[in-house]
Amino acid sequence: MATYRETISIDTKPGVQAIDLTERVASTVAKSRVQDGVVCIFTPSSTSAIVTNEFEPGLMTEDIPNALERIFPEGIEYGHQRRWQDGNGHSHVRATFLGPSLTIPVIDGRAALGTWQQIAFLELDNKPRHRDVIVQVVGETATPRAK
Amino acid sequence: MATYRETISIDTKPGVQAIDLTERVASTVAKSRVQDGVVCIFTPSSTSAIVTNEFEPGLMTEDIPNALERIFPEGIEYGHQRRWQDGNGHSHVRATFLGPSLTIPVIDGRAALGTWQQIAFLELDNKPRHRDVIVQVVGETATPRAK
Amino acid sequence: MATYRETISIDTKPGVQAIDLTERVASTVAKSRVQDGVVCIFTPSSTSAIVTNEFEPGLMTEDIPNALERIFPEGIEYGHQRRWQDGNGHSHVRATFLGPSLTIPVIDGRAALGTWQQIAFLELDNKPRHRDVIVQVVGETATPRAK
Repeated sequence: MATYRETISIDTKPGVQAIDLTERVASTVAKSRVQDGVVCIFTPSSTSAIVTNEFEPGLMTEDIPNALERIFPEGIEYGHQRRWQDGNGHSHVRATFLGPSLTIPVIDGRAALGTWQQIAFLELDNKPRHRDVIVQVVGETATPRAK
Repeated sequence: MATYRETISIDTKPGVQAIDLTERVASTVAKSRVQDGVVCIFTPSSTSAIVTNEFEPGLMTEDIPNALERIFPEGIEYGHQRRWQDGNGHSHVRATFLGPSLTIPVIDGRAALGTWQQIAFLELDNKPRHRDVIVQVVGETATPRAK
Repeated sequence: MATYRETISIDTKPGVQAIDLTERVASTVAKSRVQDGVVCIFTPSSTSAIVTNEFEPGLMTEDIPNALERIFPEGIEYGHQRRWQDGNGHSHVRATFLGPSLTIPVIDGRAALGTWQQIAFLELDNKPRHRDVIVQVVGETATPRAK
């Protein structure tokens, strides 16, 4: 068994910005040489989230942002805002409900995503941010055939 | 340490359909011989979800579908729909918020679910689908006592 | 590779009560001696949840409870309530959407949380409850340098 990790560094734009991490996660899983196990994608932040769905503009730039604004509006009063005055109370609530962590099985050396299933980082803060997303692979490496 | 995997194949009905996977997950964990570790249940799809709660009809056939329709209505405009015309924009948004992945500790050879906590696959698409849910167990197998 | 587990026992108050588990999770990870891997925090219950965000009162005692009441109101009709008459249909729906499980990478012997990211148990039931939260660590322990 082995663990392998890479960090994906990204610079984001405020509002709801979706960034496709699928290829970078695939590359990390390939380099890990893990054949069977799990990969955990994690954003160490309280105003962003990791989700997975079809990475197409209708969904990522319109439907998900609209749903977030509908159920967690930016313009209502937030206790977080009264205390900290940083204008991102809605960002914290949205991140709490979407979550920072996604765990995917690794099978035959690949993350077992469906055809229409991409991994998206969602920036939810109201300021541009630097983010370091962690990709942690845990599992069994291939047994060497020779020896 | 070891990994073990089974795939649960199901044929679903459209709308919000809940299918109880608890026994099949328990069977997979038992066959894995893993004593301590984690089990990851994952649907490789962008219009379904894995959740856990009490599998009783009031919740699964009424309250969860009602909540989904209340916060992610089928009848509003979706950017996904404008581009793809497949009528399931709401399904993608619902799947994004509920999530495709559930990780549960394995203790003494069993998934550590509570008494009123069952594992449910939720079909969220607007068409009947064939689904292959992945159950991946990672952990330590029992140490053989003899030898 | 190794697994290590502790159970955090808590007695809760009804309504939406947030309890900060960060230090107890950190202590469990430290005792596990796992250097690289993952930690899974899991509540074996259908009326509570594990989330992560900034543990400050504005968010935890006002914004998250307000969001839950806005999107999953206590006062509407629930099928669960009609069948079981225990007054907590909203609790089950809220727990289903927030989820009982959080997986975090372990790096250099510590859970890889961000600075403003604490781990919170959320009691969602309408009665005081005793809860046993599971903290399961899976990964590689440090290789001893000497010997």
